[in-house]
Amino acid sequence: MQYFPPALEKLTEQFARLPGIGHKSAQRLAFYILSQPPEEVQAFADALTGAKHAIALCPICQNLTEGDGPCSICANPKRDKSTICVVASPKDVVAIERAREYEGVYHVLHGVISPMNHVGPDDLYVKELLGRVAEGPVREVIMATNPDTEGEATAMYLSRLLKPFGVKVSRLAYGIPVGSHLEYTDDATLMRALEGRREMR
Amino acid sequence: MQYFPPALEKLTEQFARLPGIGHKSAQRLAFYILSQPPEEVQAFADALTGAKHAIALCPICQNLTEGDGPCSICANPKRDKSTICVVASPKDVVAIERAREYEGVYHVLHGVISPMNHVGPDDLYVKELLGRVAEGPVREVIMATNPDTEGEATAMYLSRLLKPFGVKVSRLAYGIPVGSHLEYTDDATLMRALEGRREMR
Repeated sequence: MQYFPPALEKLTEQFARLPGIGHKSAQRLAFYILSQPPEEVQAFADALTGAKHAIALCPICQNLTEGDGPCSICANPKRDKSTICVVASPKDVVAIERAREYEGVYHVLHGVISPMNHVGPDDLYVKELLGRVAEGPVREVIMATNPDTEGEATAMYLSRLLKPFGVKVSRLAYGIPVGSHLEYTDDATLMRALEGRREMR
Repeated sequence: MQYFPPALEKLTEQFARLPGIGHKSAQRLAFYILSQPPEEVQAFADALTGAKHAIALCPICQNLTEGDGPCSICANPKRDKSTICVVASPKDVVAIERAREYEGVYHVLHGVISPMNHVGPDDLYVKELLGRVAEGPVREVIMATNPDTEGEATAMYLSRLLKPFGVKVSRLAYGIPVGSHLEYTDDATLMRALEGRREMR
């Protein structure tokens, strides 16, 4: 039997397709939408289609951007084009930019190599990275994938691919997070922090 | 500094306005939308505006319906129009319909009286309920608001309003939920279950 009007069921279904939202939450969200004034709902609908239409990938670094040209980082003449920081996602670019330390450019892979999820190098923007290293005056490629198994594997794979180009390939330092406590640091991190210890000056 | 393209920020903001969705989740949902094919995103946007446009309140019971006429329950000649079950929300109609026991009609208040949230009787569909009882051949009004403080207060308030009409006003039975354990039943429910005990035949 049909309990709710079809338009409400349809909206609930659409919400339920979003990751991490189950049927009950989807229903709650659909009811919330019904309770909103029409112009608010229209604004939400416009934001959905607007984002999809307006946002493209930067033709150089594959980061998210609006319009056809390169992104604001690639277009910035002050950024050092000879250093490329390789990240898995646009969110990682934001995280690094927030630190206000890095002055080079980025390359966004849009994922990591993950055999479990059927993601191979061909599903990522690896060719584009090789193209940039082959063409441009690149001196260093910094691997900044997440320090988990898949991130590590992706960094290793890329560093091997980049070897023949004679470019320096580095990796973000592992260690104890600033502001954390030794007591609560896991063994693997402590081990890496010991390995990577640096002389005090 | 602007980190993400404005269209993405806008979409994130829209998601973050939904109840129970924080900024991080909103960002995750916005990224998910970007990863979807344009026709899926369009379908989502259409479901949003479609639901808002298509869904109206039944002129009789105030339940959600599509189109201008009465809802399918009010329009059904087999339903007993002399019994009105008063609920707070359309979700409660669905819950009762699912039990396949009730053959009367409904009245949806769209909320409960809640001084904390500045919801008074005038913000609910109370006038419409009184109108139905005054006009139609109504014999019984069943209060089926939630058994919490506000639901109870609303039921009490309505039952007093309905007294002058000489109509029978009843309340859903309180008791131990079917399939539950006495051991895990809270005191208030156990007390109500004792009070409402019935002779076995």
